[in-house]
Parts: sequence; structure tokens; C-alpha cells
Amino acid sequence: MPQNHPESAFDRATAVSVAEGGGAVAELDPGWEVGGGILNGGYLMAIAARAALLGSPHPHPVAVSATFLRASAGGPASVSVTSGPAGRTLANGVAVLSTDAGPALTAQVTTATLGEVPVDWSAHPMPAVPAPEACVAALRPDGVPTPGLVQRLDIRFDPATTGWTEGRPAAEPRLRAWMRLSDGREPDPLALLLFADALPPAAYAIGRMGWAPTVQLQVLVRALPAPGWCLVENVNTEVAGGWTDEDCRIWDSTGRLVAQSRQLARLPR
Amino acid sequence: MPQNHPESAFDRATAVSVAEGGGAVAELDPGWEVGGGILNGGYLMAIAARAALLGSPHPHPVAVSATFLRASAGGPASVSVTSGPAGRTLANGVAVLSTDAGPALTAQVTTATLGEVPVDWSAHPMPAVPAPEACVAALRPDGVPTPGLVQRLDIRFDPATTGWTEGRPAAEPRLRAWMRLSDGREPDPLALLLFADALPPAAYAIGRMGWAPTVQLQVLVRALPAPGWCLVENVNTEVAGGWTDEDCRIWDSTGRLVAQSRQLARLPR
Repeated sequence: MPQNHPESAFDRATAVSVAEGGGAVAELDPGWEVGGGILNGGYLMAIAARAALLGSPHPHPVAVSATFLRASAGGPASVSVTSGPAGRTLANGVAVLSTDAGPALTAQVTTATLGEVPVDWSAHPMPAVPAPEACVAALRPDGVPTPGLVQRLDIRFDPATTGWTEGRPAAEPRLRAWMRLSDGREPDPLALLLFADALPPAAYAIGRMGWAPTVQLQVLVRALPAPGWCLVENVNTEVAGGWTDEDCRIWDSTGRLVAQSRQLARLPR
Repeated sequence: MPQNHPESAFDRATAVSVAEGGGAVAELDPGWEVGGGILNGGYLMAIAARAALLGSPHPHPVAVSATFLRASAGGPASVSVTSGPAGRTLANGVAVLSTDAGPALTAQVTTATLGEVPVDWSAHPMPAVPAPEACVAALRPDGVPTPGLVQRLDIRFDPATTGWTEGRPAAEPRLRAWMRLSDGREPDPLALLLFADALPPAAYAIGRMGWAPTVQLQVLVRALPAPGWCLVENVNTEVAGGWTDEDCRIWDSTGRLVAQSRQLARLPR
């Protein structure tokens, strides 16, 4: 079972409990919204993964694919889980998270036990980015209201990718930021699910703003992250006809790749 | 509905029909095996996608995430589909493909209507590869038995990525090959699901051979492919502790990116 930190806002907000008759129930915390009260997709994925872990002999989500059926706000939710065969190496389950409005998210959750995972080959070393203290905080110091998600995460953008905030869009849709939970809880695979969907769309970097709802998102967790900051890089590699990918990589504080994800999202035309 | 070509071996082998009481039935064709009678995962995904399309107002799978629960052989199969909300832009369904041995694959299938999809940004132009005629055919001319899949696809490896076949492994786990269906049928989104899982593991390129069973695979179809050959590139970007990703890109004969996929797979230690 994943360790819970009772004092962690993230753990409290993603807690699930076994429901009578199977599955799990959760209380969606309106604080993890990205604007207009709409909850962040990675936040919902973390809840679905927790529900799937209840029925797994393994403690870590290593592959989670989620489809977002409708935008969700805070309130009570239920998660039904259909468990597949569980083996010594891994187990699988399909989770459906529903609110009063109906099914909000379906997720395939593969769980395993991540221990020492020695690296044989790595194509993507952590890019060189200034230390978090020299980066640009997402939380505005001037009192401008920010979405709840931005308050619950400590996000520090690589200044090389923030030209768009000053009217100087980049040539390439790429955002990079240090990230950690504001509550001081260290990163783990559940937090990586959140981090993989927490940056704005990478198209912001080229000055193309607007909400880009996720259609389908796959996150692969490749190793347990070390304590400290994670570096999150989000890139659009193909933008076409109102659709874009968001290709994300996450390195931990030791420079190790700990997660990679890809989503298909809709772009405002 | 996707066009069926009655004379196409691929269309015959992936055909589904509506089952009494809902869902679909299919006959898994043992010819699409990768060795030892075990069916190719992309082949199974195409069947699951066809079943999901039966219940969708849209004709094309644009995002398919599949979890592979157990290896499957030829024989009768059923596919249950739970449809999510369907909109003007896209629809979602969860398909479960089962054989006599139990559930073999779960798949989240997002369907849409792909028409003209103008490209705004593309980070990965098609790599320069010799023409198919100057490449290395996967089907051995010397009568050495090959898996059924290799007979049903025309695969021509970029000679720059075939050193491993002659005892000269490369420094980088990357394979590239032209691909088309042997039956002459032109590529479409369903064929791209097959192509995304049809190359050997990219680790072969560095001389690390052996079966690498897929755990979870996401394929995004980004545009309708033009007729002719597709170029498929498969790369391992992170190999660690017996796990690897397989990152795949597919370009059509005009050089356009038409699909991208990523899977988590187990590597033989």
C-alpha cells in the first residue's frame, strides 16, 4: 500500500475508502481546480489509481491510461474497479470514476512493485535548467488570483520557457518547470500522475493560449522519485487540425527520468 | 463506418459482428501470430477498435489505450463495449476482448472523424531512409520460417538499423522500417494500430534479443494516411530494471506524421 501522510493536503484530497458492495468512494476537493471550478485531470487520475491499488497486491501505479469523459467539479465520487489477473510482477485493473453527473473518467491502471530499477539505457538526460530559486514562480506574488492547483503545487518555470508571459512567444511549444507539492510531501508515483498533467499546455510557449481539454492521457512511472524537486518538461510535437499531443517527461532531483506521459488534447482553434 | 475491403486478409481477420445481447464477436485468426501461436497485440487492438466503432457515430479511432492481460491464440472471441458519452467531435468506449481463457485485452477507444487536418506544428519530420526497394525485407527469401505476422505485412528495414542481424549491434535502440499490408490494402487508422505494434522490440538494434511482452500501449492516430508505404520508427528511450518503453512514430508516403504510440513492455533480463 502507498504510504499516506495524514498531514498532506494531497493525500487528504486523493483519499479513497472501500465502499460497501465493492469499489471505493472519494470526496473530490474543489481546491484542485484549474479554473472555473474544473478539477485537474491528473488529480482525478491519482484518485482512480488509489482506488485500483486497493485491489492490487502491488503498491505502485506504473502505467495509467485515462480517458476524460466530462469535466468534473468538487463533490462526492465513486470509483468502481474491475480487477484483471494479478501476477507476481504486475496486476491490472480498470477504474471508472463517477460523480453525480455520471462517469467522469475511465482509467486502466497497471500496478507493480518498484524497488531498485537500475538504468541500462536512457536517451533523455535531464536538461540543464537554473536552480528553482532562480526560476519563475507560477504563483504570482502580486495577489492576482490563481487556480487552486497552482496554489497546491510549487511550480518554478525555467525562464528560458517563459517569454510568452511577457509577450515574447518562443519558436517551439516547450515548457519546463520544477515542481513539488506545496504541502511538503515528497514525490511518489501518485504525485507523478498529478505532475504529468499539471503544466499549462505547451502551446502557451508559442503564444497560443486557451484551455486544452485532455482527451486521453497515458502516464508511465519508470522509477521511484528521490525526495526533492522534480523537473517537468512538456512538449507539443504535433499540432494539427485542433488536436495536439502533450509529451511530458519528469526527472527527479537526482536527474533520473522517473515518468513519461503522452496525452491527446483538443486545442482551441 | 470504416470501409471494409472484402478481399483484404487484414479486414477479414479483424472483422467483428454484432452479438446478440450487445457487444461483438470475432474469430481470432491464428495467422497473425508473432511466434509460438501468440497473436500480435496490434492485431488484437484493431479488433477491439472495430468493436468500439460499432457503437460510435464517428468512423476513426484517434486514441486507443490497451492493456494486455494474457497472451492469446487463435479462436473465437467476444468483445464487450461500454460506451461513454458521444459528442459532435468525439466519442469514447471501453472494450474488453475475451477468449475462452478469459479477458485478454482491455482498451479505451476514442473515436472521431478525421478529415482535413492541417498541420500547424510538427517537431519530427520523416527521417531520411532509402527507398523500400533498397531496404532489407523482413521476410527471408531463403525459406527460413517466419511468424505469421511477418508474412502478412511487407516490412523493409532501413539498412542503417539492421546491423544486429549481422552481429554488429548499434549503439542506440532504434529500428526503422517501411511497412504495408501484404494484401495490398491501403493504410487507414485501423492498420496504423497494427503497424504501431508490428516491429520487433527496438532493443534488438543493440543486440538485446528476446520477446518483450507489451504491458500497456497507447496509440494516437493524428491524420488519415495517404496510400502507399508507411515508415515506422520504434525507439527505446528508457530501459531500466527489466522495463522498457517503445516509442513509435509512423509517417505516411507523403512524409506526414500519421500516428505516434508509446508502450510499456517487459524486457527479458
